[in-house]
Amino acid sequence: MQYYEDVEVGETEEFGEYQFDKEEIIEFAEKYDPQPFHTDEEAARESVFGELVASGWQTAAVCMRMLVDGYLRDQASMGARGVDELRWLKPVKPGDTLHIRAEIVDKRLSESNPHRGYVDNKMEGVNQDGEVVISWIGLGMMEVRDPDV
Amino acid sequence: MQYYEDVEVGETEEFGEYQFDKEEIIEFAEKYDPQPFHTDEEAARESVFGELVASGWQTAAVCMRMLVDGYLRDQASMGARGVDELRWLKPVKPGDTLHIRAEIVDKRLSESNPHRGYVDNKMEGVNQDGEVVISWIGLGMMEVRDPDV
Repeated sequence: MQYYEDVEVGETEEFGEYQFDKEEIIEFAEKYDPQPFHTDEEAARESVFGELVASGWQTAAVCMRMLVDGYLRDQASMGARGVDELRWLKPVKPGDTLHIRAEIVDKRLSESNPHRGYVDNKMEGVNQDGEVVISWIGLGMMEVRDPDV
Repeated sequence: MQYYEDVEVGETEEFGEYQFDKEEIIEFAEKYDPQPFHTDEEAARESVFGELVASGWQTAAVCMRMLVDGYLRDQASMGARGVDELRWLKPVKPGDTLHIRAEIVDKRLSESNPHRGYVDNKMEGVNQDGEVVISWIGLGMMEVRDPDV
Protein backbone atom coordinates (compact mmCIF):
# COMPACT_ATOMS: atom_id res chain seq x y z
CA MET A 1 0.00 0.00 0.00
CA GLN A 2 1.33 3.43 -1.00
CA TYR A 3 1.02 6.29 1.48
CA TYR A 4 1.60 10.04 1.16
CA GLU A 5 5.29 9.60 1.97
CA ASP A 6 5.74 7.11 -0.89
CA VAL A 7 4.83 9.37 -3.81
CA GLU A 8 7.15 11.94 -5.38
CA VAL A 9 6.40 14.97 -7.53
CA GLY A 10 7.43 14.22 -11.11
CA GLU A 11 6.68 10.49 -10.98
CA THR A 12 4.90 9.43 -14.17
CA GLU A 13 3.07 6.16 -14.89
CA GLU A 14 1.32 4.80 -17.97
CA PHE A 15 -1.24 2.01 -17.64
CA GLY A 16 -4.67 0.71 -18.56
CA GLU A 17 -6.48 -0.13 -21.76
CA TYR A 18 -10.13 0.47 -22.59
CA GLN A 19 -11.76 0.10 -25.97
CA PHE A 20 -14.91 2.09 -26.71
CA ASP A 21 -17.65 0.28 -28.55
CA LYS A 22 -20.69 1.76 -30.25
CA GLU A 23 -23.22 0.03 -28.00
CA GLU A 24 -21.69 1.37 -24.78
CA ILE A 25 -21.34 4.89 -26.24
CA ILE A 26 -25.05 4.92 -27.12
CA GLU A 27 -26.13 3.30 -23.84
CA PHE A 28 -24.22 5.84 -21.72
CA ALA A 29 -25.46 8.78 -23.79
CA GLU A 30 -29.11 7.69 -23.73
CA LYS A 31 -28.92 7.74 -19.94
CA TYR A 32 -26.73 10.75 -19.23
CA ASP A 33 -26.01 12.83 -22.33
CA PRO A 34 -28.74 12.36 -24.97
CA GLN A 35 -27.39 14.73 -27.62
CA PRO A 36 -27.90 13.33 -31.15
CA PHE A 37 -24.18 13.09 -31.99
CA HIS A 38 -23.81 10.72 -28.99
CA THR A 39 -26.93 8.59 -29.48
CA ASP A 40 -27.73 8.35 -33.20
CA GLU A 41 -25.30 7.42 -35.98
CA GLU A 42 -27.42 9.01 -38.69
CA ALA A 43 -27.83 12.32 -36.86
CA ALA A 44 -24.15 12.28 -35.91
CA ARG A 45 -23.20 12.22 -39.60
CA GLU A 46 -25.04 15.54 -40.06
CA SER A 47 -23.47 17.07 -36.94
CA VAL A 48 -20.25 19.08 -36.46
CA PHE A 49 -18.52 15.79 -35.57
CA GLY A 50 -19.48 13.98 -38.79
CA GLU A 51 -19.78 10.67 -36.94
CA LEU A 52 -20.84 9.15 -33.62
CA VAL A 53 -18.65 10.30 -30.69
CA ALA A 54 -18.60 9.37 -27.02
CA SER A 55 -19.99 11.74 -24.39
CA GLY A 56 -17.11 13.58 -22.76
CA TRP A 57 -18.47 12.43 -19.42
CA GLN A 58 -18.24 8.79 -20.52
CA THR A 59 -14.62 9.39 -21.53
CA ALA A 60 -13.99 10.83 -18.06
CA ALA A 61 -15.73 7.87 -16.41
CA VAL A 62 -13.71 5.36 -18.46
CA CYS A 63 -10.49 7.11 -17.39
CA MET A 64 -11.68 6.89 -13.78
CA ARG A 65 -12.13 3.14 -14.26
CA MET A 66 -8.53 2.83 -15.43
CA LEU A 67 -7.33 5.02 -12.55
CA VAL A 68 -9.14 2.81 -10.03
CA ASP A 69 -7.76 -0.42 -11.53
CA GLY A 70 -4.23 0.78 -12.20
CA TYR A 71 -3.56 3.32 -9.49
CA LEU A 72 -5.96 3.84 -6.62
CA ARG A 73 -6.22 0.17 -5.64
CA ASP A 74 -2.65 0.30 -4.29
CA GLN A 75 -2.97 3.71 -2.67
CA ALA A 76 -4.14 4.76 0.77
CA SER A 77 -6.48 7.16 -1.02
CA MET A 78 -8.85 9.41 0.92
CA GLY A 79 -10.82 10.36 -2.21
CA ALA A 80 -10.69 13.51 -4.32
CA ARG A 81 -11.77 17.08 -3.60
CA GLY A 82 -12.32 17.69 -7.26
CA VAL A 83 -10.77 18.23 -10.64
CA ASP A 84 -9.30 21.31 -12.33
CA GLU A 85 -8.81 22.04 -16.01
CA LEU A 86 -10.85 19.13 -17.38
CA ARG A 87 -10.44 19.38 -21.16
CA TRP A 88 -11.91 17.36 -24.02
CA LEU A 89 -9.21 17.74 -26.64
CA LYS A 90 -10.22 15.28 -29.36
CA PRO A 91 -13.38 13.28 -30.08
CA VAL A 92 -13.49 9.61 -28.99
CA LYS A 93 -15.11 7.28 -31.53
CA PRO A 94 -16.24 3.64 -31.56
CA GLY A 95 -13.18 1.39 -31.78
CA ASP A 96 -10.81 3.87 -30.10
CA THR A 97 -8.66 2.46 -27.32
CA LEU A 98 -7.45 4.70 -24.51
CA HIS A 99 -4.82 4.34 -21.83
CA ILE A 100 -3.74 6.62 -18.98
CA ARG A 101 -0.66 8.72 -18.44
CA ALA A 102 -0.53 10.15 -14.91
CA GLU A 103 2.05 12.42 -13.33
CA ILE A 104 2.24 13.66 -9.75
CA VAL A 105 2.49 17.45 -10.02
CA ASP A 106 2.18 18.61 -6.40
CA LYS A 107 2.06 17.27 -2.85
CA ARG A 108 1.71 18.96 0.53
CA LEU A 109 0.54 18.08 4.03
CA SER A 110 -2.81 19.26 5.31
CA GLU A 111 -2.40 22.07 7.83
CA SER A 112 -5.43 21.00 9.84
CA ASN A 113 -5.19 17.18 9.77
CA PRO A 114 -1.77 15.53 10.26
CA HIS A 115 -3.14 12.23 8.91
CA ARG A 116 -3.94 13.76 5.50
CA GLY A 117 -1.80 14.77 2.56
CA TYR A 118 -2.85 16.49 -0.64
CA VAL A 119 -1.55 14.94 -3.86
CA ASP A 120 -2.35 16.48 -7.25
CA ASN A 121 -2.08 14.46 -10.46
CA LYS A 122 -2.02 15.52 -14.09
CA MET A 123 -4.12 12.85 -15.81
CA GLU A 124 -4.14 12.29 -19.56
CA GLY A 125 -6.22 9.84 -21.60
CA VAL A 126 -4.22 8.84 -24.67
CA ASN A 127 -5.63 7.09 -27.76
CA GLN A 128 -4.14 4.38 -29.99
CA ASP A 129 -2.47 7.08 -32.13
CA GLY A 130 -0.72 8.64 -29.14
CA GLU A 131 -3.07 11.65 -29.10
CA VAL A 132 -4.21 13.08 -25.76
CA VAL A 133 -8.02 13.12 -26.01
CA ILE A 134 -8.84 14.19 -22.43
CA SER A 135 -6.87 15.66 -19.55
CA TRP A 136 -7.43 16.99 -16.06
CA ILE A 137 -5.68 17.85 -12.80
CA GLY A 138 -6.98 15.52 -10.07
CA LEU A 139 -6.99 16.97 -6.56
CA GLY A 140 -6.47 13.86 -4.45
CA MET A 141 -5.96 13.11 -0.78
CA MET A 142 -3.79 10.36 0.70
CA GLU A 143 -3.25 9.01 4.17
CA VAL A 144 0.00 9.86 5.91
CA ARG A 145 1.72 6.69 7.16
CA ASP A 146 3.59 8.26 10.07
CA PRO A 147 1.85 11.47 11.11
CA ASP A 148 4.03 13.85 13.11
CA VAL A 149 1.62 14.15 16.07
CA MET B 1 -33.62 28.44 -30.40
CA GLN B 2 -31.25 30.54 -28.30
CA TYR B 3 -28.11 31.94 -29.93
CA TYR B 4 -25.04 33.68 -28.50
CA GLU B 5 -26.76 37.05 -28.73
CA ASP B 6 -29.68 35.82 -26.60
CA VAL B 7 -27.83 35.01 -23.38
CA GLU B 8 -26.72 37.56 -20.80
CA VAL B 9 -24.09 37.38 -18.09
CA GLY B 10 -25.81 37.08 -14.72
CA GLU B 11 -28.83 35.14 -15.98
CA THR B 12 -29.65 32.32 -13.57
CA GLU B 13 -31.98 29.36 -14.08
CA GLU B 14 -33.06 26.47 -11.85
CA PHE B 15 -34.46 23.29 -13.35
CA GLY B 16 -34.41 19.52 -13.45
CA GLU B 17 -35.04 16.73 -10.96
CA TYR B 18 -33.16 13.44 -10.69
CA GLN B 19 -33.46 10.94 -7.87
CA PHE B 20 -30.53 8.63 -7.19
CA ASP B 21 -31.39 5.03 -6.43
CA LYS B 22 -29.14 2.37 -4.99
CA GLU B 23 -29.27 0.10 -8.03
CA GLU B 24 -28.11 2.80 -10.44
CA ILE B 25 -25.35 3.94 -8.05
CA ILE B 26 -23.99 0.39 -7.88
CA GLU B 27 -24.42 -0.27 -11.62
CA PHE B 28 -22.53 2.90 -12.60
CA ALA B 29 -19.76 2.25 -10.09
CA GLU B 30 -19.27 -1.38 -11.08
CA LYS B 31 -18.62 -0.19 -14.61
CA TYR B 32 -16.66 3.02 -14.08
CA ASP B 33 -15.64 3.55 -10.45
CA PRO B 34 -15.44 0.24 -8.57
CA GLN B 35 -14.34 1.55 -5.19
CA PRO B 36 -16.02 -0.33 -2.31
CA PHE B 37 -17.87 2.71 -0.90
CA HIS B 38 -19.63 3.02 -4.31
CA THR B 39 -20.38 -0.67 -5.00
CA ASP B 40 -20.92 -2.46 -1.68
CA GLU B 41 -23.25 -1.36 1.12
CA GLU B 42 -21.43 -3.44 3.75
CA ALA B 43 -17.97 -2.16 2.82
CA ALA B 44 -19.33 1.39 2.58
CA ARG B 45 -20.42 1.22 6.22
CA GLU B 46 -16.78 0.60 7.22
CA SER B 47 -15.48 3.40 4.95
CA VAL B 48 -14.89 7.11 5.64
CA PHE B 49 -18.38 7.77 4.23
CA GLY B 50 -20.19 5.38 6.60
CA GLU B 51 -22.69 4.47 3.89
CA LEU B 52 -23.05 3.87 0.16
CA VAL B 53 -22.36 7.04 -1.90
CA ALA B 54 -22.55 7.75 -5.63
CA SER B 55 -19.40 8.04 -7.73
CA GLY B 56 -18.59 11.70 -8.25
CA TRP B 57 -18.50 10.97 -11.98
CA GLN B 58 -22.05 9.62 -11.86
CA THR B 59 -23.15 12.82 -10.10
CA ALA B 60 -21.49 14.82 -12.89
CA ALA B 61 -23.15 12.65 -15.56
CA VAL B 62 -26.59 13.04 -13.93
CA CYS B 63 -26.11 16.82 -13.90
CA MET B 64 -25.19 16.65 -17.58
CA ARG B 65 -28.47 14.84 -18.23
CA MET B 66 -30.41 17.63 -16.54
CA LEU B 67 -28.42 20.24 -18.47
CA VAL B 68 -29.23 18.53 -21.78
CA ASP B 69 -32.94 18.23 -20.96
CA GLY B 70 -33.40 21.65 -19.38
CA TYR B 71 -30.92 23.87 -21.15
CA LEU B 72 -28.95 22.64 -24.15
CA ARG B 73 -31.97 21.40 -26.12
CA ASP B 74 -33.05 25.00 -26.72
CA GLN B 75 -29.56 26.34 -27.40
CA ALA B 76 -27.53 26.57 -30.60
CA SER B 77 -24.76 24.82 -28.65
CA MET B 78 -21.45 24.00 -30.32
CA GLY B 79 -20.34 21.74 -27.47
CA ALA B 80 -17.95 22.37 -24.59
CA ARG B 81 -14.19 22.85 -24.52
CA GLY B 82 -14.05 21.56 -20.97
CA VAL B 83 -14.81 22.25 -17.35
CA ASP B 84 -12.93 24.20 -14.68
CA GLU B 85 -13.15 23.90 -10.90
CA LEU B 86 -15.19 20.69 -10.74
CA ARG B 87 -15.81 20.15 -7.02
CA TRP B 88 -17.54 17.34 -5.13
CA LEU B 89 -18.74 19.21 -2.07
CA LYS B 90 -21.04 16.71 -0.33
CA PRO B 91 -21.69 12.98 -0.75
CA VAL B 92 -24.74 11.91 -2.78
CA LYS B 93 -26.65 8.95 -1.29
CA PRO B 94 -29.46 6.66 -2.44
CA GLY B 95 -32.76 8.56 -2.28
CA ASP B 96 -31.18 12.00 -2.76
CA THR B 97 -32.82 14.19 -5.41
CA LEU B 98 -30.78 16.82 -7.24
CA HIS B 99 -31.68 19.77 -9.40
CA ILE B 100 -29.55 22.29 -11.31
CA ARG B 101 -28.81 25.94 -10.71
CA ALA B 102 -26.94 27.49 -13.64
CA GLU B 103 -25.66 31.04 -14.06
CA ILE B 104 -23.98 32.59 -17.08
CA VAL B 105 -20.73 34.07 -15.76
CA ASP B 106 -18.91 35.16 -18.93
CA LYS B 107 -19.45 35.53 -22.69
CA ARG B 108 -17.21 36.72 -25.49
CA LEU B 109 -16.88 36.31 -29.25
CA SER B 110 -14.25 34.04 -30.74
CA GLU B 111 -11.42 36.06 -32.29
CA SER B 112 -10.82 33.49 -35.03
CA ASN B 113 -14.35 32.37 -35.94
CA PRO B 114 -17.12 35.01 -36.24
CA HIS B 115 -19.77 32.27 -36.09
CA ARG B 116 -18.70 31.17 -32.61
CA GLY B 117 -19.18 32.65 -29.17
CA TYR B 118 -17.77 31.44 -25.85
CA VAL B 119 -20.26 31.21 -22.99
CA ASP B 120 -19.16 30.12 -19.50
CA ASN B 121 -21.66 28.79 -16.97
CA LYS B 122 -21.39 28.24 -13.25
CA MET B 123 -23.25 24.97 -12.73
CA GLU B 124 -24.41 23.74 -9.31
CA GLY B 125 -26.13 20.48 -8.40
CA VAL B 126 -28.39 21.12 -5.41
CA ASN B 127 -29.95 18.42 -3.21
CA GLN B 128 -33.38 18.20 -1.56
CA ASP B 129 -32.01 20.06 1.49
CA GLY B 130 -30.77 22.97 -0.62
CA GLU B 131 -27.12 21.93 -0.27
CA VAL B 132 -24.79 22.31 -3.24
CA VAL B 133 -23.26 18.83 -3.68
CA ILE B 134 -21.33 19.42 -6.93
CA SER B 135 -20.29 22.49 -8.91
CA TRP B 136 -18.24 23.38 -11.96
CA ILE B 137 -17.59 26.12 -14.49
CA GLY B 138 -18.67 24.88 -17.94
CA LEU B 139 -16.74 26.32 -20.88
CA GLY B 140 -19.37 26.25 -23.61
CA MET B 141 -19.58 27.43 -27.19
CA MET B 142 -22.66 28.83 -28.95
CA GLU B 143 -23.48 29.77 -32.49
CA VAL B 144 -23.72 33.45 -33.32
CA ARG B 145 -27.04 34.22 -35.06
CA ASP B 146 -25.85 37.23 -37.04
CA PRO B 147 -22.09 37.06 -37.48
CA ASP B 148 -20.47 40.39 -38.36
CA VAL B 149 -18.71 39.13 -41.48
